[in-house]
Amino acid sequence: MPTWTEYIFYKKIGRVPSPGDVVEVVPDLVGFHDLTGYHVLEVLEHMGKVEVFDKGRVVVAFDHLSPAPNQRAAEIMVYIRKHVKSLGLPNFYDVGGGILHQIILEKYALPEQVIFAADSHTNTAGAVGAFAHGMGATDIAAALKLGKTWLVVPTPFRVDVAGEFPPGVVGKDVALHLLAQFGAEGFNGYSVEVFVEKPKAFPMDDRATVANMSTEMGADALMFIPDSVTASYLKTERGVDYTPPSIEPGKYADKYTVELGRLEPLVAAPYSVDNVKSVREVEGVEVDQVFIGSCTNGRLSDVEIAAKILKGRRVKTRCIAIPASYEIFRRAMKLGYIDVLTEAGCVVTYGTCGPCLGGHFGVAGPGEVVVTTSNRNFKGRVGHPDSKVYLANPAVAAAAAAEGKIVDPRPYLRS
Amino acid sequence: MPTWTEYIFYKKIGRVPSPGDVVEVVPDLVGFHDLTGYHVLEVLEHMGKVEVFDKGRVVVAFDHLSPAPNQRAAEIMVYIRKHVKSLGLPNFYDVGGGILHQIILEKYALPEQVIFAADSHTNTAGAVGAFAHGMGATDIAAALKLGKTWLVVPTPFRVDVAGEFPPGVVGKDVALHLLAQFGAEGFNGYSVEVFVEKPKAFPMDDRATVANMSTEMGADALMFIPDSVTASYLKTERGVDYTPPSIEPGKYADKYTVELGRLEPLVAAPYSVDNVKSVREVEGVEVDQVFIGSCTNGRLSDVEIAAKILKGRRVKTRCIAIPASYEIFRRAMKLGYIDVLTEAGCVVTYGTCGPCLGGHFGVAGPGEVVVTTSNRNFKGRVGHPDSKVYLANPAVAAAAAAEGKIVDPRPYLRS
Repeated sequence: MPTWTEYIFYKKIGRVPSPGDVVEVVPDLVGFHDLTGYHVLEVLEHMGKVEVFDKGRVVVAFDHLSPAPNQRAAEIMVYIRKHVKSLGLPNFYDVGGGILHQIILEKYALPEQVIFAADSHTNTAGAVGAFAHGMGATDIAAALKLGKTWLVVPTPFRVDVAGEFPPGVVGKDVALHLLAQFGAEGFNGYSVEVFVEKPKAFPMDDRATVANMSTEMGADALMFIPDSVTASYLKTERGVDYTPPSIEPGKYADKYTVELGRLEPLVAAPYSVDNVKSVREVEGVEVDQVFIGSCTNGRLSDVEIAAKILKGRRVKTRCIAIPASYEIFRRAMKLGYIDVLTEAGCVVTYGTCGPCLGGHFGVAGPGEVVVTTSNRNFKGRVGHPDSKVYLANPAVAAAAAAEGKIVDPRPYLRS
Repeated sequence: MPTWTEYIFYKKIGRVPSPGDVVEVVPDLVGFHDLTGYHVLEVLEHMGKVEVFDKGRVVVAFDHLSPAPNQRAAEIMVYIRKHVKSLGLPNFYDVGGGILHQIILEKYALPEQVIFAADSHTNTAGAVGAFAHGMGATDIAAALKLGKTWLVVPTPFRVDVAGEFPPGVVGKDVALHLLAQFGAEGFNGYSVEVFVEKPKAFPMDDRATVANMSTEMGADALMFIPDSVTASYLKTERGVDYTPPSIEPGKYADKYTVELGRLEPLVAAPYSVDNVKSVREVEGVEVDQVFIGSCTNGRLSDVEIAAKILKGRRVKTRCIAIPASYEIFRRAMKLGYIDVLTEAGCVVTYGTCGPCLGGHFGVAGPGEVVVTTSNRNFKGRVGHPDSKVYLANPAVAAAAAAEGKIVDPRPYLRS
């Protein structure tokens, strides 16, 4: 009986590989964005000719430096657009389309697929049960040209998710909990397979957050075993009929159970993703900037919980809210969330990574304290090396914006 | 009988000065923003102590590089915030508040005032009949410390505006028409006084655009002689009762009449603000980016006309729309314009200069053609030196976004 990892690779290579095996696979999707796309195309140029194995399998999105914050970014975009046009790539998302990982999840990724993209958070597509893995630009260039690439088969690790989220606790807290338990390198060489006990209690947005942050755990991939929520998501969002295969649980190197009911809102304090504390432990820390967005927590349910907390309130510190894609922004607009967030004083835009990586649109200054829903808090990650970053879920972030300091968001959800 | 310029200076210095006189005045308002504020404060530090003559008369807004697009901008903001806090300045607008000139017009400027700010487009407040003039950071620092500054009294020039706007023609076209007639240095040393024949036919937003662009004409100031529209604007927007004084027209060096009914939508083609052409002359020019915003055309009526054109359409080229202040964004949101613009695919945010100056949030790349509602199209102004900028009104800009090329916007307003 295979694990989900084995099942996917079996379908790709015709045999069940063992952990550590080096295998060659044909990717179902290959992606890159503005920041890495330049290098991908440059390597393709060095390889003789800019060409791709299958136009339909290539996804390109401008997100890291979009809209262009400087001349170099603008030059890179002109260069990438030129190649996208001459290659005739149909799946191209220019400024404002969305963050690559969200675009892939929203429009392309399917269970059982193998997805590679030139960005470490490619793992995000594991939310629907795809083996999704980030690679360097050179590897992606080779995969694009050759239509195949190699990788070392990771060791499956089973995570069970039991129970239901208490109020104010979301997928982000599961990710932070796993980081607290296993550390920032805890899943190096592993493929994490997540079995959800009560599928409806763990919506797709939360799955995406956990899959996304598996990168911080060192995981080669993190996949939610497709279930009724996966099927329903694919049907509703993409019109795709998918019936999860019935696979007996395989053999895992190790396993771990997350009891949702025992979780509380967590934060990762400076300067490491696994420096995890209860939000109660850091209450009162004064905050200079809040960021709600990114490929980690820029989805509709994230905007929704932030709007719930900020409704009728006025932010006491600057707050930047960026839904991760055009589609999410439009839905949030229709549902009135953008109205609520901007009424409260949040600066909004959409479809850019912006302040997640200190790229633009809210780079942190010296000494500033930032609460962000994004995925990394290493020294200098969001700007100045002397800034301090707390990773948190969108409820914690919104409550911090409302108060100008870190607070437990749960009372704000009850009121 | 005095001109409006003479009247204002008479009230300030107790005598009617002659053009060319050097006078000392106590400013009613002094402003600076992020980009110039750093220098203003640095000069104050060099002068011994960072202090201001009157806290209530100082307006500070972060707009040029807001939200911070890089570490240097973030550092500057931290530095300015520190001083704003220690000085206890009440009129401070942090990230997302709005563009300085819009903030001054929206909340502070009054007729008959003398306003100086460390930015060339300070002229904007001339919309309500204030003598508003941009100065360098050093002069502004001195004015802040001493509570007074000197200037050479400009020569009054009278402009009469007759008739009413045809559809698709707005204040921007009056500004471009004046630039076509008098050139980019045509009003050097002049104070332009605008008399509107039919006040209601020339709303405050259009006045602000013309006053704003007087900087491009070289004018020391451009003031709309306060009339019923000024009084009504001040009452409605600010609760201020103002009765325009009855002043007989004074003696002008020269005068000119703009017949609104004869205007058509105009553009300033690369690379000069006075390289003015009818939009019909440049129809068909392919466009890579459209920007609707800035202190020139980021007001509610600008967003409104853009929304009117883009309603039910989908942009064919990237379009960035940035209402100039929080207040404008919120009104545009309530009126459904933000919904229309984002439905059409415009990337939005608010309260930043962004791509106007190639600062961030849409810097142009090499070879790119940009249609912008902002105020300058010099080589390299919005990014790469090889980009090409057409200045236009928001109807022309929105129609260019809808078609991906420059077109006459008037048919789009009829449909």
